[in-house]
Amino acid sequence: MADRALDVVGIGNAIVDVLSHADEAFLAAEGLAKGSMTLIDAGRADKLYAAMGSAVECSGGAAANTVAGVASLGGGAGFIGKVKNDQLGQIFRHDIRAVGVTFDTEPAADGPSTARCLVLVTPDAQRTMGTYLGACVELTPDDIDEALLARARVTYLEGYLWDPPAAKDAFLKAMRATHAAGGKVALTLSDTFCVERYRHEFLDLVDNQVDVLFANENEIKALYQVGDFDAAAAAVRGRCEVVALTRSEKGSLILAGEANYRVAAEPVEEVVDTTGAGDLYAAGFLYGYTRGRNLGDCGRIGAIAAAEVIGHMGARPATSLARLVSETLG
Amino acid sequence: MADRALDVVGIGNAIVDVLSHADEAFLAAEGLAKGSMTLIDAGRADKLYAAMGSAVECSGGAAANTVAGVASLGGGAGFIGKVKNDQLGQIFRHDIRAVGVTFDTEPAADGPSTARCLVLVTPDAQRTMGTYLGACVELTPDDIDEALLARARVTYLEGYLWDPPAAKDAFLKAMRATHAAGGKVALTLSDTFCVERYRHEFLDLVDNQVDVLFANENEIKALYQVGDFDAAAAAVRGRCEVVALTRSEKGSLILAGEANYRVAAEPVEEVVDTTGAGDLYAAGFLYGYTRGRNLGDCGRIGAIAAAEVIGHMGARPATSLARLVSETLG
Repeated sequence: MADRALDVVGIGNAIVDVLSHADEAFLAAEGLAKGSMTLIDAGRADKLYAAMGSAVECSGGAAANTVAGVASLGGGAGFIGKVKNDQLGQIFRHDIRAVGVTFDTEPAADGPSTARCLVLVTPDAQRTMGTYLGACVELTPDDIDEALLARARVTYLEGYLWDPPAAKDAFLKAMRATHAAGGKVALTLSDTFCVERYRHEFLDLVDNQVDVLFANENEIKALYQVGDFDAAAAAVRGRCEVVALTRSEKGSLILAGEANYRVAAEPVEEVVDTTGAGDLYAAGFLYGYTRGRNLGDCGRIGAIAAAEVIGHMGARPATSLARLVSETLG
Repeated sequence: MADRALDVVGIGNAIVDVLSHADEAFLAAEGLAKGSMTLIDAGRADKLYAAMGSAVECSGGAAANTVAGVASLGGGAGFIGKVKNDQLGQIFRHDIRAVGVTFDTEPAADGPSTARCLVLVTPDAQRTMGTYLGACVELTPDDIDEALLARARVTYLEGYLWDPPAAKDAFLKAMRATHAAGGKVALTLSDTFCVERYRHEFLDLVDNQVDVLFANENEIKALYQVGDFDAAAAAVRGRCEVVALTRSEKGSLILAGEANYRVAAEPVEEVVDTTGAGDLYAAGFLYGYTRGRNLGDCGRIGAIAAAEVIGHMGARPATSLARLVSETLG
C-alpha cells in the first residue's frame, strides 16, 4: 500500500450518544426494534428522551467510533462528519480530536442541532438505538476533503450515511476520490434495517466500489436475503477483496478470494453494553490491514478492540487499545 | 418529624460533569490541587477542556447528586438550582427529573451557559475538579421556592453555594424558611478550599443555623484549623444536633450530643472514581434520618450508597440504591 500519513479516514454521521438502561417492556412500549437502529424525528426524540431514565452522554457515531479506535491503537486517523456549532457539537469535536483524530469538517452554524442517538441498554447488555440525525442532514459533497482522503490508506464509510439525503452524494464522491488517489474503500453495512432501506444500492456498491466489507451475521443475511449464514457467506465471497463477517460470541469469519480465516471472539469478563462492538472490530481490523498484517491477525486485533468496548458503557475505548493489543498479542 | 411529602430538598449548583482520565503530571501542569475543587472562569474552562482527553458527560452538582441518591433510595426529593436553557441544561433537568426529583427552578434564558465541572480522575481513582459556575451565578433568593421547602423534612445545602455571590442570599433565605416551616437544615462543607474561603461564615452557620452537618476529615480540620481529626471532632461536638464526619476507607464518625457512632466503610471491589462519594453518603444518611432510623443505621446506609458510586465513573447512582440497601441490610 502506498506510503501515507494516515491509516483510516472515516466518514459518517457525527453523533453524541445518550446512554440509559431500559427493560424490554420499555422498548416494546416505544415501538423500538431491539438490537437495531430506528430513525426518529426531533419530536419523537424529545418524547423518547423524556420517557428514558437518567443518562450518560458520550461521543458516538459508527465510523467516528471506528476512527477513534484506530487512533487508540496508535494509528493515524481522520474523520469527516457534520455537527452543529452547539454544546453537543463541541463535545463531539473535543472527544474525537482528543484521541488524535484529524477532524476539520465545518460545523453547521444554524439548522438542526447536533445529532443524538438515544441508546437503550437492556439487562442482557444489548443496545437498541433511536437516532435523531439533526445536523447530519447538512453534510454535502462540499464537505468531502479530497486532500484528507488522499493522505489515508483506507476510507471507511458507514451504511448509515445513506439516511441523510445529501450525504449519499458525499459518500459517492468520497469513494471516487479514494480510488482516484489509489486508496482502498471500506464499508460497513451498519444495520439490518439500513440494509433493507438501501439493499439495491448496497449490492451495487459491494460489487463495484468496495474493497473491504464489514457486516454482521444479520446484515449479510439481509443483504442477500438468505436465512442462513453459510449461504450469505457464499453469496458475498469474491465480490470484494476482503469481507469480514462478525458473529458476536461466535467470533468472525474473514473471506479473501478462496481463503477463509476464522477468528474466535475474545473472552470478556462481563458484557456490560454492546454499543460499538462492530465499530471497534472494524477499527482493529483496519489498523492491522493498513499495517500489512495477515487477515487472521487483523480479525484478532478487531476482536480484542471489540471485547474492550463491550466491557463498559459507551462506544469509544476507555483504555489504550495499543497497550491492550500489545499485552494480549505479545 | 412532621409528616411531609418529601424527605429532602437540596439546594446547590446545577452542574454537568465532564469526566476524563488524567495523570498527576497533568494536574500539576494545570495547577489543579489534587482531590479539591478549583473555580475556573470560562476562558480557563475552555483551555482546560481542550487539554483534557476524551470525556463522558453526566449530570453532577453536589446537592443534586445527593437528592438523586435520596430518590434512588426510594425517598421523596426536590432540588433548587440554576441552569441555562441550553443543551447541557436540558441534560441536567432530564437526569434529575428522570430519577423522580421535583425540579422546577426556572432556567436562565440568557447569560452564561449551564455550569460544567471538569473532573479529572487519576489512576488512584481520586477526582480533581475544575468548576465553571456559568448559570449558577444567576440563582437568587427569588428562586427559593418556600412552598417546596415546607413540604420537606430536611433542606440540604452545599457549602459550594457560597461561591456564586447572589446564591448566598438564596442560601440564607432557604435556611430561615426551613426553620420557620419546622424543617431541619443540613449543610455539607463541600471542600477544604471552600472552607478556607468562607470559614468565618461557616463557623457561624454551624453554631446558629445548621441541624445536621456533613464534612470529611480534611474539611472539619480546616474549619477548626486543627491538624488532628480527634481535635476537630472534639471542636465540633455539640455545635449542632448531628455531625457526620466521613473518612474515606476509615468509615465515618457520627456525633450527637455525647454519643458517638462509628460506622465502617462498605467494602468495594474496585474503586474506579471517587466523584460523588460524599454526596451519596449524605444521601444515604439523610434518607435514614428522615425515616427515623438510628444514627448508626443512617451512617450504614450512607456507606452503602457511597460504595456504589465509587465503583463506577460518575457521581450519580448507576443502580437502584433501594434494592442495594435492602440486599445489604436485609
